[in-house]
Amino acid sequence: MCPTPLPATNGTNGHTNGTNGNSSYVGIDITEGPPVQNGRERNPYAPVQDFLSNISKFKVIESTLREGEQFANAYFTREKKIEIAKALDDFGADYIELTSPAASEESRRDCEAICKLGLKSKILTHIRCNMSDAKLAVETGVDGVDVVIGTSSFLMKDSHGKDMAYIEKTAIEVIEFVKSKGIEVRFSSEDSFRSDLVDLLRLYKAVDKVGVHRVGVADTVGCATPRQVFDLVRTLRGVVSCDIETHFHNDTGCAIANAYCALEAGATHIDTSVLGIGERNGITTLGGLMARMIVADRDYVVGKYKLEKIKEIEELVAEAVAVNIPFNNPITGFCAFTHKAGIHAKAILANPSTYEIINPADFGINRYIHFASRLTGWNAIKSRAQQLNIAMTDAQYKECTAQIKLLADIRPIAIDDADSIIHAFHRNVIAGKANPGSSVYLPNMTEQEKKKLAGITAEEKNLPEKRQLEETVAQETATEQVLKKAKTNGVTA
Amino acid sequence: MCPTPLPATNGTNGHTNGTNGNSSYVGIDITEGPPVQNGRERNPYAPVQDFLSNISKFKVIESTLREGEQFANAYFTREKKIEIAKALDDFGADYIELTSPAASEESRRDCEAICKLGLKSKILTHIRCNMSDAKLAVETGVDGVDVVIGTSSFLMKDSHGKDMAYIEKTAIEVIEFVKSKGIEVRFSSEDSFRSDLVDLLRLYKAVDKVGVHRVGVADTVGCATPRQVFDLVRTLRGVVSCDIETHFHNDTGCAIANAYCALEAGATHIDTSVLGIGERNGITTLGGLMARMIVADRDYVVGKYKLEKIKEIEELVAEAVAVNIPFNNPITGFCAFTHKAGIHAKAILANPSTYEIINPADFGINRYIHFASRLTGWNAIKSRAQQLNIAMTDAQYKECTAQIKLLADIRPIAIDDADSIIHAFHRNVIAGKANPGSSVYLPNMTEQEKKKLAGITAEEKNLPEKRQLEETVAQETATEQVLKKAKTNGVTA
Repeated sequence: MCPTPLPATNGTNGHTNGTNGNSSYVGIDITEGPPVQNGRERNPYAPVQDFLSNISKFKVIESTLREGEQFANAYFTREKKIEIAKALDDFGADYIELTSPAASEESRRDCEAICKLGLKSKILTHIRCNMSDAKLAVETGVDGVDVVIGTSSFLMKDSHGKDMAYIEKTAIEVIEFVKSKGIEVRFSSEDSFRSDLVDLLRLYKAVDKVGVHRVGVADTVGCATPRQVFDLVRTLRGVVSCDIETHFHNDTGCAIANAYCALEAGATHIDTSVLGIGERNGITTLGGLMARMIVADRDYVVGKYKLEKIKEIEELVAEAVAVNIPFNNPITGFCAFTHKAGIHAKAILANPSTYEIINPADFGINRYIHFASRLTGWNAIKSRAQQLNIAMTDAQYKECTAQIKLLADIRPIAIDDADSIIHAFHRNVIAGKANPGSSVYLPNMTEQEKKKLAGITAEEKNLPEKRQLEETVAQETATEQVLKKAKTNGVTA
Repeated sequence: MCPTPLPATNGTNGHTNGTNGNSSYVGIDITEGPPVQNGRERNPYAPVQDFLSNISKFKVIESTLREGEQFANAYFTREKKIEIAKALDDFGADYIELTSPAASEESRRDCEAICKLGLKSKILTHIRCNMSDAKLAVETGVDGVDVVIGTSSFLMKDSHGKDMAYIEKTAIEVIEFVKSKGIEVRFSSEDSFRSDLVDLLRLYKAVDKVGVHRVGVADTVGCATPRQVFDLVRTLRGVVSCDIETHFHNDTGCAIANAYCALEAGATHIDTSVLGIGERNGITTLGGLMARMIVADRDYVVGKYKLEKIKEIEELVAEAVAVNIPFNNPITGFCAFTHKAGIHAKAILANPSTYEIINPADFGINRYIHFASRLTGWNAIKSRAQQLNIAMTDAQYKECTAQIKLLADIRPIAIDDADSIIHAFHRNVIAGKANPGSSVYLPNMTEQEKKKLAGITAEEKNLPEKRQLEETVAQETATEQVLKKAKTNGVTA
């Protein structure tokens, strides 16, 4: 069942005073509360897991250092690979997959180096189904080997029958060899969802019989649909006794959903990469999978993975491959937990602000409100003030914004704090104070915080920017400044 | 059934000469071809649509100007809204949804202004379920009104029974009023997937009975799962005779997948916004939905929507809300159709390069290869040259890259072109030519292109950057230059 959002406490006029609500859950409150689940709501379609489902038992095979290396702009040095491997290990990735040692001498050495790190995560590498690659792989020190059957050997026009026997024979030979070294072995195909089902099942049944640890199915092209995935994996679940791994590309935007359906159906392992980097637009993202699964079973995910590391890992990898973290990235995108201040002014009935199904604190994300530190803040402050029925000049909004930003440097501020600041500022304006922002503080500031503010304010007085703002307020200019647009990247917290 | 990729023709050494293959489909070829579908592959799980499915009949309700206006950084002026509305209309959006006229005087005037544009798209607005909002809405000139029931009135603890009758009464009153004005009316709830099913169906049955044009279900929190969506929509499909609209948030990364499953189940309309902008990390993206649906039924999508406009529209909206187009955005992200040149050097069996399920040309995207114009190009050129078993110094790779970039300005070049250029450059190096890049051209250059190149080359000769590169080559420096990292944004084409 989808979890219910934490209820917000209604204070006066339908607004929630930040301190009354759950301290880890800060958000814009609206006059209408979230649905009160009184136990009489019956929803037969809420996801109910059967005994085959692994929603609460799944494992992650982190493939940033294999699939990710196939990303258009990935050029990982050994040092970078080690840094990423350590970060993934710290996060709690069950497995870390590496590029084949057969790909190049450098890849082979990368394997060896990472195996020597003594990580908690199991180290895997990825080879073709032949003995020479297998011999190379088992010497690197990996904990497991993923053996992949190439499509051309699998589906060639005239190969049916004769080559199936050959393929089975080779597969079994390689598998038994790897197993004889005390190493885990997975067997998988590519483009599994468009493959001949009988061939696929026949082959997987044969390798299961010789004790392969895991079979894998891959949506190499990214065309598989969620219910199709469920059906195939559910069938496979009834055919093999070993673990089932899945690998989903995101060309049609279904990689996370497909992973979820696969787990419902009985898959045990999901391939991910950080930010989904890989061929074309990549695969199931690590962060996105965590967002999907924390909603499905928070206890399992929170207990198993260091979710607060996601943000760091994404920044590490984003920097390494020279991309920006998408603005709409689940959880870590700048707007994942932000709301438009102006929504109240433009309030429509269906205000989803309180329907936050994920608690940002679970991911170590505290800064909840975007306008406290954004360059476009003054416009958002103006919107918010208008919602509060406060009318000031643009110059005054800007000075108020400057004060908010100053205070935001003392501690993260929530929208409720911002409201207090706006009200206090406005009272000073009404009272005719020359410098309306100067005596405006955060609610319940500690002595330490006040000292820090005094320090920053003293510095700020010397900044030309601040002086200019003061001049502007003094002149009460009526001209609206052109909205300063800044490209929005990264995480707000 | 997932469509098969266009087969690449194998030339010498397993590489495809660009001109032999389908001219609109250019890609890196690998030694192993894509699966040859010989008709004997049977895949029972390939999506087969039943008569209730609307995969090939769906419509888009474009909500950039309603849901999108709730995006954290959206501050649309009227002019910008008009510009976006026209772009969406040109694209072929069936409906354009606007913020409620009841939200503010400005919103009301925006509605009127856009209604006066005479667009092909039907214009909708979004109101609460009350007569005063309805009266305001019908006067704006909209073609349709979306009426939304607020959760608090729907699910309050003690409202069961008594309020259901009241809600039905109010809903019917508003619906009949709007209909009496000859205007389309939709009725919908929020957080539908966690609502009491019987209440939901009862209400929708009642409004269907009085002839509402459409009912809507919304995953307001973004927690719905694909099969859950299918089940609920399929049930609703059997209860109402009117159209069914769906609205999916993307907090758990399932917005596109859920839209797909909804259509399979019988939904008729999908809410989208450009880049998915909206509350939190948004809703089903317009581009992503097109990627999903073009794979499901290319003829329908290509015939109905101007897909080549997607890129422009995304850039227009991205600019308006000050965000970057995500690097991994389906289709328009820089890497959606690119491949890592180095993949061959690090080749693993499962090379998905040929498994391109979407043809970029359908979206007007021609530039297929990332390294022809990227700052990190020299490193990619080096990788590619190494794959071709060509060894040169880094300085030579850089000059070769410079020549490729020059030529890329003449016309978009594919990796095959790049190969020719690298080979030609290398031949000149071997032959001891002083300026190995100077006589290197694109294959089959037209006279016009040669003239253009001569013009650019003349200019380039005066650029300090180019002179420096020439000096570097002359000095044959062995020191590797630090990889120039540039943040990668936007679309490559």
